[in-house]
Amino acid sequence: MVLGPRPDRADPAAPRPAPEPGTGRVTLVGGGPGDPGLITVAGLQALRQADVVVTDRLAPQECLAEIPAHAEVIDVAKIPRGEQTSQETINALLIDRARRGAHVVRFKGGDPYVFGRGGEEVVALTEAGVPVTVIPGVTSSIAAPELAGIPVTHRGLSQGFTVVSGHVAPGDPRSGVDWAALARSGTTLVILMGVHTLRRICTRLLADGMDPALPAATIADAGLAGQRVVRSTLAALPDAVEAAGIGSPAVTVIGAVAGGELPGTSALAERGLVR
Amino acid sequence: MVLGPRPDRADPAAPRPAPEPGTGRVTLVGGGPGDPGLITVAGLQALRQADVVVTDRLAPQECLAEIPAHAEVIDVAKIPRGEQTSQETINALLIDRARRGAHVVRFKGGDPYVFGRGGEEVVALTEAGVPVTVIPGVTSSIAAPELAGIPVTHRGLSQGFTVVSGHVAPGDPRSGVDWAALARSGTTLVILMGVHTLRRICTRLLADGMDPALPAATIADAGLAGQRVVRSTLAALPDAVEAAGIGSPAVTVIGAVAGGELPGTSALAERGLVR
Repeated sequence: MVLGPRPDRADPAAPRPAPEPGTGRVTLVGGGPGDPGLITVAGLQALRQADVVVTDRLAPQECLAEIPAHAEVIDVAKIPRGEQTSQETINALLIDRARRGAHVVRFKGGDPYVFGRGGEEVVALTEAGVPVTVIPGVTSSIAAPELAGIPVTHRGLSQGFTVVSGHVAPGDPRSGVDWAALARSGTTLVILMGVHTLRRICTRLLADGMDPALPAATIADAGLAGQRVVRSTLAALPDAVEAAGIGSPAVTVIGAVAGGELPGTSALAERGLVR
Repeated sequence: MVLGPRPDRADPAAPRPAPEPGTGRVTLVGGGPGDPGLITVAGLQALRQADVVVTDRLAPQECLAEIPAHAEVIDVAKIPRGEQTSQETINALLIDRARRGAHVVRFKGGDPYVFGRGGEEVVALTEAGVPVTVIPGVTSSIAAPELAGIPVTHRGLSQGFTVVSGHVAPGDPRSGVDWAALARSGTTLVILMGVHTLRRICTRLLADGMDPALPAATIADAGLAGQRVVRSTLAALPDAVEAAGIGSPAVTVIGAVAGGELPGTSALAERGLVR
C-alpha cells in the first residue's frame, strides 16, 4: 500500500487534462475529525486523483494541499446557523461536474454517514445515474472523546454508546429522539451539534432521572493543537461550557467513562506522526 | 505467539537495531474495518515506524507488509469464544517491549475505544509509566453498514444511532444494557459481536415493543471482496442470517435506514482506490 509521491505539481501552468463526458463519478470521502493524519489512505488517494473537490468547512483543509494542480476546489462551507449552501445546490453541483466527466471528491469532516447528509447525496447521485463510492471516515463522535482521553466504551463502565444530534432540542416537535429512553439506556451518550442546545438537553436528561453527578465532558477542536476539554458533571456542564467560552463545533460525552483520567492525544502532526 | 521477522526481510542475519531502554512507547492504532485502504495515514505511519507490532486477528493484516524489516510481529489473535491471549498477558507484553526501548504498535481492528479494550491497555501502560498515544480508526459499527449502503443516520429516518455489544445476551446478569430503553430510543440500533446472541436479542426487542417489520440487516466482511449482506426484518433476521450461514464477526443494523437501497462500496483495493 505505497502511497507514492504526490501528483506532479512541477508545472502548474501545464494544460489541464479535459475529463471525458460520461466517465464522471463521485467519491464521498470522510476526512475524520480534523487532524490531517486522521484521513484514511483511500480517502487521501481519492483526493490525489480528483478533478473537482467539493469541500465542507469541517473537512481537514490541510489535506487539500494534496490535490492535483488542475483540480477545481469548491467550498460549500456550512456555517452553523449561518449562511449555507442548500443541499439541493450541492447535489446539483456534484451531478453537473460528474456529467462533465470529472472525478468529483465530496470532502467531508468525520464520516459521511454520521449527520453528514452523505446518504442524501448518494440518493441524488444514484437517481441521476452518476456512479458513487463512499469512503468511510473516522467519526468525531468517537474520536473527539478518544483524543481527549475518554473511551466511549470501557469494560465495567459502558457496554455501548449512543450518538445523537443536538441540533434539534428536546421538546421540539421535529425531534425523533426519545431522551427519556436514552437517559435509561445504560449507554454512554455522545451529542454532536449540541452546544447551543446543551442546557436544554442536560435539563431534560436530569428531569428524566439521570444522575446529576454523572461525569460529562465537552471537547472542542479534538486532536488539534488547540484542543479544549471541559470536564464536569451532567448538572454543572452547561455552566462550565459557557464559562469556558466553547462554541460550535464541539462534542459532548455523558457517562461514567467521562470521569476517567486517561491521557489524551493531540497534535499528531506536531508529534511527528503525520509527515 | 511470536512470529518473528518478516520472511521477505532482505538479510535476516543482519543485526537488529537495538532500541534504547527508556525511550520506549506504545501507539494504539485502529486499523479500520478490514480493507487496508481504510487505515488512517497516521496509523500507517506508526506501523512504518514500529519496532514491535502486537496485532489482533481483526486488524487489516495486509498493512503488516508496510512494517520495517527488523520489526517483531506478535499475533494475539482473539478468536471469538475460542482460545485467546488474556488481557493481562497482552498488557505485560506491551509494557515489557516498551521498557526495552521499542516503539510498540498495538494494532487493532476498527477503533481502539469501541469494544477494543484499548482503554484497559492505556490504563495499564499509564500505570506502568509507559508513554502511550491513541490513533483513532474507522469503526466497523458505522463503516460496515455504510459499505453495505446503509447510513446509520439519514434525515427523516434517524437522528442518531446506538452501538452495543451483543457479546452478553439480554437477560444475562452481566448485561448493563437496558434493551427496553433501546427499543424505544428512536435511534438506529447497531449490534457488534452479536451473531451467536442474535435470536435472543431480536426476541427481546420484539417483546419490548419494536415493530416486527422494522428493516434489519447483518453484514459480514464489510468492504472486502467477500462482503455479504443479509437484508430482512427484525422478526425474520435470525432465520435469514442462519440460512445464509453468517458467522462471527458480523455487524447487525436495525432501523428504518436498513430498508434503503443505496449502492454499497466494496473492495476498494480492486477498484484501484488503494494502491
